[in-house]
Amino acid sequence: MRPSQRRPDELRLIRFTLGFTRYAEGSVLVEFGDTHVLCTSSLDPNVPPFLKGKGQGWVTAEYGMLPRATAERTPREATRGKQSGRTQEIQRLIGRSLRAAVDLKALGERTITLDCDVLQADGGTRTAAISGGWLALRLAINRLLDSGALTVDPLRAQVAAVSVGIWEGIPVLDLDYAEDSTAATDLNLVMDEQGRFIEIQGTAEAQPFSRNELDALLSLGESGIRAIQAAQCAVLNGG
Amino acid sequence: MRPSQRRPDELRLIRFTLGFTRYAEGSVLVEFGDTHVLCTSSLDPNVPPFLKGKGQGWVTAEYGMLPRATAERTPREATRGKQSGRTQEIQRLIGRSLRAAVDLKALGERTITLDCDVLQADGGTRTAAISGGWLALRLAINRLLDSGALTVDPLRAQVAAVSVGIWEGIPVLDLDYAEDSTAATDLNLVMDEQGRFIEIQGTAEAQPFSRNELDALLSLGESGIRAIQAAQCAVLNGG
Amino acid sequence: MRPSQRRPDELRLIRFTLGFTRYAEGSVLVEFGDTHVLCTSSLDPNVPPFLKGKGQGWVTAEYGMLPRATAERTPREATRGKQSGRTQEIQRLIGRSLRAAVDLKALGERTITLDCDVLQADGGTRTAAISGGWLALRLAINRLLDSGALTVDPLRAQVAAVSVGIWEGIPVLDLDYAEDSTAATDLNLVMDEQGRFIEIQGTAEAQPFSRNELDALLSLGESGIRAIQAAQCAVLNGG
Amino acid sequence: MRPSQRRPDELRLIRFTLGFTRYAEGSVLVEFGDTHVLCTSSLDPNVPPFLKGKGQGWVTAEYGMLPRATAERTPREATRGKQSGRTQEIQRLIGRSLRAAVDLKALGERTITLDCDVLQADGGTRTAAISGGWLALRLAINRLLDSGALTVDPLRAQVAAVSVGIWEGIPVLDLDYAEDSTAATDLNLVMDEQGRFIEIQGTAEAQPFSRNELDALLSLGESGIRAIQAAQCAVLNGG
Amino acid sequence: MRPSQRRPDELRLIRFTLGFTRYAEGSVLVEFGDTHVLCTSSLDPNVPPFLKGKGQGWVTAEYGMLPRATAERTPREATRGKQSGRTQEIQRLIGRSLRAAVDLKALGERTITLDCDVLQADGGTRTAAISGGWLALRLAINRLLDSGALTVDPLRAQVAAVSVGIWEGIPVLDLDYAEDSTAATDLNLVMDEQGRFIEIQGTAEAQPFSRNELDALLSLGESGIRAIQAAQCAVLNGG
Amino acid sequence: MRPSQRRPDELRLIRFTLGFTRYAEGSVLVEFGDTHVLCTSSLDPNVPPFLKGKGQGWVTAEYGMLPRATAERTPREATRGKQSGRTQEIQRLIGRSLRAAVDLKALGERTITLDCDVLQADGGTRTAAISGGWLALRLAINRLLDSGALTVDPLRAQVAAVSVGIWEGIPVLDLDYAEDSTAATDLNLVMDEQGRFIEIQGTAEAQPFSRNELDALLSLGESGIRAIQAAQCAVLNGG
Repeated sequence: MRPSQRRPDELRLIRFTLGFTRYAEGSVLVEFGDTHVLCTSSLDPNVPPFLKGKGQGWVTAEYGMLPRATAERTPREATRGKQSGRTQEIQRLIGRSLRAAVDLKALGERTITLDCDVLQADGGTRTAAISGGWLALRLAINRLLDSGALTVDPLRAQVAAVSVGIWEGIPVLDLDYAEDSTAATDLNLVMDEQGRFIEIQGTAEAQPFSRNELDALLSLGESGIRAIQAAQCAVLNGG
Repeated sequence: MRPSQRRPDELRLIRFTLGFTRYAEGSVLVEFGDTHVLCTSSLDPNVPPFLKGKGQGWVTAEYGMLPRATAERTPREATRGKQSGRTQEIQRLIGRSLRAAVDLKALGERTITLDCDVLQADGGTRTAAISGGWLALRLAINRLLDSGALTVDPLRAQVAAVSVGIWEGIPVLDLDYAEDSTAATDLNLVMDEQGRFIEIQGTAEAQPFSRNELDALLSLGESGIRAIQAAQCAVLNGG
Repeated sequence: MRPSQRRPDELRLIRFTLGFTRYAEGSVLVEFGDTHVLCTSSLDPNVPPFLKGKGQGWVTAEYGMLPRATAERTPREATRGKQSGRTQEIQRLIGRSLRAAVDLKALGERTITLDCDVLQADGGTRTAAISGGWLALRLAINRLLDSGALTVDPLRAQVAAVSVGIWEGIPVLDLDYAEDSTAATDLNLVMDEQGRFIEIQGTAEAQPFSRNELDALLSLGESGIRAIQAAQCAVLNGG
Repeated sequence: MRPSQRRPDELRLIRFTLGFTRYAEGSVLVEFGDTHVLCTSSLDPNVPPFLKGKGQGWVTAEYGMLPRATAERTPREATRGKQSGRTQEIQRLIGRSLRAAVDLKALGERTITLDCDVLQADGGTRTAAISGGWLALRLAINRLLDSGALTVDPLRAQVAAVSVGIWEGIPVLDLDYAEDSTAATDLNLVMDEQGRFIEIQGTAEAQPFSRNELDALLSLGESGIRAIQAAQCAVLNGG
Repeated sequence: MRPSQRRPDELRLIRFTLGFTRYAEGSVLVEFGDTHVLCTSSLDPNVPPFLKGKGQGWVTAEYGMLPRATAERTPREATRGKQSGRTQEIQRLIGRSLRAAVDLKALGERTITLDCDVLQADGGTRTAAISGGWLALRLAINRLLDSGALTVDPLRAQVAAVSVGIWEGIPVLDLDYAEDSTAATDLNLVMDEQGRFIEIQGTAEAQPFSRNELDALLSLGESGIRAIQAAQCAVLNGG
Repeated sequence: MRPSQRRPDELRLIRFTLGFTRYAEGSVLVEFGDTHVLCTSSLDPNVPPFLKGKGQGWVTAEYGMLPRATAERTPREATRGKQSGRTQEIQRLIGRSLRAAVDLKALGERTITLDCDVLQADGGTRTAAISGGWLALRLAINRLLDSGALTVDPLRAQVAAVSVGIWEGIPVLDLDYAEDSTAATDLNLVMDEQGRFIEIQGTAEAQPFSRNELDALLSLGESGIRAIQAAQCAVLNGG
């Protein structure tokens, strides 16, 4: 039995709340069980210097964690004066994953920034951030379409993410912190709505994993992502 | 008529939600209208180096604002590599205000850190943070009393704060952003439950203010703080 | 009897020396007893980016303290790599106070920077800096008027500052370090020549203060500021 | 035909030069074609603070690139004042990969630091660094065994890495810069000598990849890693 | 004729004012013409970590320049967040020069820090700082001798410094800014009271200099340093 | 006998390898015995802001040391977040020395950056860097001449450098680390092909040095520099 009492292939309670805050073009509170991440999208009519005049847009992401999102207080990065390597690695992953869903030419010369701030952390913050970030991105692009700023939808894929791992020898889905910290392997998957891979990041925490184990994890992850994508669709459809 | 349609002496809707997040010793979401601040308190069994071995505790605060708490996105301080002067000024004010409420000797050699993170900003974030921070502090100290770590309550005062200002020539209470940005004078008051001053910070934004104007502002502020303190008591009493 | 042997309403010896250094547009050494601050003003024909093309000028201030201005050596901020929160808070206060005295439209698109560097510190460095900084500002603007760069004086108020506090239960004026470090309350006042408030910043160091105590402090501060303003006028008139 | 004129499953010329510099406990110049990385290992009798007194050792890595390792000069990170997100991501990957090969308890309370500095970059620097870093780690541990400081070998796996990608629709092995910059998918694999995975990091650069494509890439990568491991063995055996 | 109207071998007016500020163990305002540097010495009963328990003391120096010491305002290093290369080079030179005058074993386990802050700059700030810094060092050590903390004088040499240069083809002494900025060669000399070299730093600004020119500069510098040392002695003797 | 077994006037084995890396406009590995420095030159069609539109070019240098170039690992400056004072001092020396060899007007509005990275350090890294850096500069300028971008050679001098010192009372040439760390005096000389001085930097490490000792060191250094210049010519001539 998993520490969370879940079946191996069982997700935590997944919930998306649209409009959690009021000023952002898109604002989504995503909950994967006790992991709560606020994802906002911001439209900026400029592009970064390296894209000036190239006729394309940009999508980027920043990630942060409130100091007391965790069981013990984590020092504030703004006070320490820099973002940790972990933070940078995660925000680069979120940025790449969501950028992959957008036709940047069709977006035009503008930037969409996704801010993913963890209010409460219980494992899987990066996969929650990608799944909620995609919704915030969808909402910001809807604004552009509704206002007539864009007439063709530049969002060409639906993106969601989940973690899978090997815990006590069995592949399990959507690890919480108690499971993650004792798992032998940790794999984060980002996929589109056709079940194709956008990112795959696997790490052997306690011992290397075999090709067979990898195959089992990939299948488990795909099923989880399909369920998360269904939840994304439901909330967009007002459900 | 104020931009907010409120009477001059009318507060915004004030709401405190205890236990908004689950890991902190105290966790309070405070709402002053559309200003939403998450205040958490964290107990640390150590004190800063300058207090080592002095037989007293410490209370300190940190303040942050999510990038899209505001109408336009504000750059993330962790990315910029430092806290702004404004941020430091505010967190020093929160720290002093709450420290003034605590008998540090009675607290013993431990530190309580208040983290005040603005999820949504519509003016008055520092006064909301102090008012909500006091509740988070109260909750953390209750833990120490409940567990028997402390037998005498070191919290000797009830602290709340509000802003007042002169808008279109009239003194008004609890300014929102639209009012604050056009006010001639901005005054932040921090008071205890006896109506005594803990902090008073007034700035002539557009033109200097007279002693008479100051007197009117102080009276208005006191009435507002009494109402906020009543709300603090109500939520502690389960109301 | 105060540690300084002064009467409660007695200022320290106040002295302004114009032209203490030779390159700045305005250079003033201000002494409040053993507190010595060098205030210089610098003219810059540009404005900060956020004011470009808005047809107005800017006034700003920076504050520093030489490492051995104090009884014990303070680490150099340039070596530590950042300004402390206290330094930023003080330089923001100086900047706001002096900016309030200037008609920025009438100043035109230029910046005046006040540098206030403490050579020796015995309490009250921020109030000395504001009082001396106003003179340095006056001198720089005189240059603009003398050269014909400006024909209308943009300096619309005379600004000075002083601290007051409650020491051993009595309100006292212009606290030195020995008094300040044991005072129950510390209040910094910035006023114009009409006795109106530009800034008021009060902190209950040891215990909250009542409305009556505040009133007494405000009256005491006003009398001190009038005397400092007289000294400012005298030195400008060659006295 | 690939830009490099290689067959899809053909590695670049792989060469390891032991003892390239003289002071480090292990020093290896690794060449993957025109990618040249100097890997050194340093023994330190201490462990990081979080491991003090826990009876285990630590293995960590740092990565850097000389400014003119690349076709255009890259600004020096020491001058810019911080390591880029890319640099931190890579050095964290190297550290995790090599740490996975070591029994940290058996290593005892000491730290081995791998420095991987790119002298010349033509794609695949991280996989070259891991493959060369493993040899530098092997050499440092040999020192400990030779000197009698250790009697049981804590190195429990042989680690090597390679990149694979989909270029013009076909899976190819060990991409150089020209190939990498135009590939649709980029996958870095780290494996042990039993063909088990230690790290797998795949990114859809131009378009998502299917499960079948992933399978083909994994097989191609495994064959490349076996060849690199053979080269590692050869150079250790004096070949 | 030199821009300063001085003869080639003529120093500027050299003046040392002891006790310019009151808290430092030694405080000296040094003037080399319009170059004014405040040098203070601070005693610290600790030594840096690398000297802990080695039975010797340390002497170090820090250098700074007030923003408006110069004809045009120089950005404040504390605001920029780091000391410039020039600043670090100068403070390392001051530290080495004064350390060379002290028997660090005889000083015992304590640190003396020299802070040299330029109030007004007209060329030659580093040589003024060394010459004034030696006096501040002398004063701090006198305190240790007077209090009985030391019984043997650890100061074994008298140190002074001057700049020489080739201006319009002729060797000149003690260059001011107007001369320095147009000189072909700039040489800073630090010597002891026996005319021996402690530091020699020469730079060909406009064109290389010959051995003969170097010889002339060295002789000129020696004569200047002897005069500065006489002034140091005079002020110590109450002159 | 010197620790290195060399005669007092004997250089270490000096070797220059051109084209050590392939992308830089000039790439030189310089060896002074066990001191190995990789010097690369990079052409940039821009000039720094302070030279924009002045019709002249710029030559600058950056210096770094790989963490394990030394007997004990030195922390990486990119990780520490800043360059040390020593690093900045050395790169400023290299930059000044090589800039002195170039007619910046004749170079035209472009920048040449010399990167000098120490792969292995055994004393004398700055003199090796200057001597090798001059060759890298020569190669970059040759590119400009060969391509027709320049028709007149802006390189007007041949520059080399060496260290000399007083070890056990005798002047010795080209000190290695064992000699340097025990020498009483350390002098770095940079000269042109006519034996004129470009830089002279001498420091009394253990005791001051006399004019006679300085004379002996200068003569010794000149002979060493001539030999290094001969080696520079030889390698340029294909020897």
